[in-house]
Amino acid sequence: MANHSRIGEACWSEIPKVNSEIFSLTYGAFVTQIIRDENNINDVNARLLAVGKGMGGRMVDEFLARSGVQDCSNFKETAENISKVGFKMFLGVVAEVVDWNEDNTAFTLKIGDMPITDFVEVPEKYKDIKYSNIICGVMAGALEMVQLHVECSMLKDMLAGDEWNEIRVELKGVLEQTMADDYQE
Amino acid sequence: MANHSRIGEACWSEIPKVNSEIFSLTYGAFVTQIIRDENNINDVNARLLAVGKGMGGRMVDEFLARSGVQDCSNFKETAENISKVGFKMFLGVVAEVVDWNEDNTAFTLKIGDMPITDFVEVPEKYKDIKYSNIICGVMAGALEMVQLHVECSMLKDMLAGDEWNEIRVELKGVLEQTMADDYQE
Repeated sequence: MANHSRIGEACWSEIPKVNSEIFSLTYGAFVTQIIRDENNINDVNARLLAVGKGMGGRMVDEFLARSGVQDCSNFKETAENISKVGFKMFLGVVAEVVDWNEDNTAFTLKIGDMPITDFVEVPEKYKDIKYSNIICGVMAGALEMVQLHVECSMLKDMLAGDEWNEIRVELKGVLEQTMADDYQE
Repeated sequence: MANHSRIGEACWSEIPKVNSEIFSLTYGAFVTQIIRDENNINDVNARLLAVGKGMGGRMVDEFLARSGVQDCSNFKETAENISKVGFKMFLGVVAEVVDWNEDNTAFTLKIGDMPITDFVEVPEKYKDIKYSNIICGVMAGALEMVQLHVECSMLKDMLAGDEWNEIRVELKGVLEQTMADDYQE
């Protein structure tokens, strides 16, 4: 685990960065635009997830190239790579892995500070928005590129008054038989 | 001038940051959404400018608080603060100030790497897009909050094949008489 943290730190120190505020304001403008376009909040949430998936599919290249991470041999290792390398490399924060299910196919990422939500207040009429759904999408999109079919969903959301953020990550299948042979769920 | 660079570096080292790639992909998703919504490319460009102005109006607080910059006494100093402090603080890059007009009310910012355009290719049918117009908007919106009415426009754009990016900044007026007394155009 210490190794994953080290890789995360090393990647973070190397990558080009921008101010977190200009990022969160830009994302806020994007969400506002989606809200304007969609009829209901469920459609907004679905769009954010879908856009995130597209982004994750592109970001996985940078992740693999910079981290040097090879195929994970099991979902526990995948969880470490997401929480300590992926989150660190892209958002500058580390997530905690908690609440594994019995057969090690689902875990929860617990995240204190979510840079994407800085400066954000959600008006009452949009209270069902899953504002950070794009992050769920990025993870699902990135993992799909390495043959892991996962579903990610917000369990807790500081924007909705929770004390921290939680994202549930559930492994639904391994997409290619070749890799599935080695991958232990 | 060295002083402005120092302030810019100090602000940059302190502010929270995220990966430049997740920022540019998020902005790309936003631009794509705007293109989907607007009828023609001029409307897209106008929307990007308008959204940027709204963001700039919020970002100026962070700029003033972190940089410790007080009222600029003239437009030359404003230019230094934008190019060496503002660009550094928010985008991690420094702009060069060139091509002043005779009465020192207009200058050009020359920018090599524009993080917002990383990984971007503009399809031929959108070739008239001013992709980085949001940056022009941010500057105009921020300066308006300190009583300077400016117009900012892209002169050169690497996305359109130019060798570097250029933004023209023209002072159109000083908004409040109280400040105008001291401000030397």
